[in-house]
Amino acid sequence: MKVRVFVTPKKGVLDPQGVVIETGLRQLGFAGADQVRVGKVIDLVVHTDDRDDASARVHAMCKTFLTNPVIEDYTFTLDEAP
Amino acid sequence: MKVRVFVTPKKGVLDPQGVVIETGLRQLGFAGADQVRVGKVIDLVVHTDDRDDASARVHAMCKTFLTNPVIEDYTFTLDEAP
Repeated sequence: MKVRVFVTPKKGVLDPQGVVIETGLRQLGFAGADQVRVGKVIDLVVHTDDRDDASARVHAMCKTFLTNPVIEDYTFTLDEAP
Repeated sequence: MKVRVFVTPKKGVLDPQGVVIETGLRQLGFAGADQVRVGKVIDLVVHTDDRDDASARVHAMCKTFLTNPVIEDYTFTLDEAP
């Protein structure tokens, strides 16, 4: 099962990459774009056909390894297509 | 309009972060998870109500600034909800 995990900085946590991108966009003339936040997207394949099993495993991965739960939130999507 | 841009390494491009995460998952006992690829997710707000206008502006941002088109692909979603 294909899994796509989104790891984003929690609301209120300073996001230097977002600030840099926002400044860069403005300097390049892209007006009217703001509230930029930068996170990670992690694509992986989990070898199971059971959505609940996959979901439980991805939650465990996220909580123990893929994210820093103090400063980051995560969500993920499961895609059963091969 | 809320925009979520996904920037991922092109197929065939070496992805060291993905390799590290895959190795780490295995060492932590998460078997049956592989093909890990790591990219960026960039959330931003584009101030327009016109989907075509927003789409054109985000394509321009991606091509000129947000991605390296030699080694990265991008996709994005538009969300009109406030």
